[in-house]
Amino acid sequence: MKRIAIDMDEVVADTMARYLEFYNADFGLNLTREHFHGRRVFEVIDAAHIPTARAYFEQESFFADIPVMPGSQDVIRELSDQYEIFITTAAMDVPCSFSAKYEWLQRHFPFVPARHIVFCGDKGIIAADYLIDDDPKHFRHFRGEGILYTAPHNVRETAFRRVENWDDVRALFLD
Amino acid sequence: MKRIAIDMDEVVADTMARYLEFYNADFGLNLTREHFHGRRVFEVIDAAHIPTARAYFEQESFFADIPVMPGSQDVIRELSDQYEIFITTAAMDVPCSFSAKYEWLQRHFPFVPARHIVFCGDKGIIAADYLIDDDPKHFRHFRGEGILYTAPHNVRETAFRRVENWDDVRALFLD
Repeated sequence: MKRIAIDMDEVVADTMARYLEFYNADFGLNLTREHFHGRRVFEVIDAAHIPTARAYFEQESFFADIPVMPGSQDVIRELSDQYEIFITTAAMDVPCSFSAKYEWLQRHFPFVPARHIVFCGDKGIIAADYLIDDDPKHFRHFRGEGILYTAPHNVRETAFRRVENWDDVRALFLD
Repeated sequence: MKRIAIDMDEVVADTMARYLEFYNADFGLNLTREHFHGRRVFEVIDAAHIPTARAYFEQESFFADIPVMPGSQDVIRELSDQYEIFITTAAMDVPCSFSAKYEWLQRHFPFVPARHIVFCGDKGIIAADYLIDDDPKHFRHFRGEGILYTAPHNVRETAFRRVENWDDVRALFLD
């Protein structure tokens, strides 16, 4: 059985939506994902806002209520019949997120067993045939094939097979 | 550069010592590691004590003050010159331990970068050439070579290369 490792933020968790919810509320703005096309968040927002915006990641409550990426639950449930699924998230950057991320995954993806959840940093440590991730840096040391999940910051990246959404993931792995 | 994945509990952390400290204090006993030769803790202790003894793992303070396994710091520092070192710990069984384990590693192994810390369940997900672990179950799906670090519960296991202590690890990988 082939194994697919799946990233969490911006792949199964719509972290950007949560982020914009906090940011727009704090600064009376109405930014959407389109404003970040081809750039990282901290390249776009007002420099004076960065300390506040960074601090969102230090709040457990930020992680607890991130929306689920549309389609991810259904497709991962389907993939589980034919592939071994692991959720591999770079949690070591944000140690305060451990418990909230774990609980979020247990709540929204109860069909992924806890022993298939991995909190890591460098994803070169992941032994899998595929890694679906929005951050191409994680493909550098990964020994399988990286599949880039589209996010605003990665739209100009051309070096990897790309999926735009979970329908694309289904088509790639199940059709 | 070859990569060595190293388990935490009973390998770099003397979790058994901490456990016996709690257990002996609670029940006025004087058990040592020798009492557990060839058996798991819950096979040895009085059945009536099991609920109390299980609850140790639900206390963050239990994990915060586990002693470092003698020699592990020096040998891992030396190994780091010739090998890529990751610490891979099966933290998913005990979600309350995440932060305490992370802080413990940062405190005692500051020369292992945070991006080389992995919290996982099934260690078959680990891509490494070697895995030093006290639990042979983790070698089942691991694609590299498992090196068994001696602990009371594993003394009868004969299927894997074995190290008794960190001097043995040094001799195996550096001599």
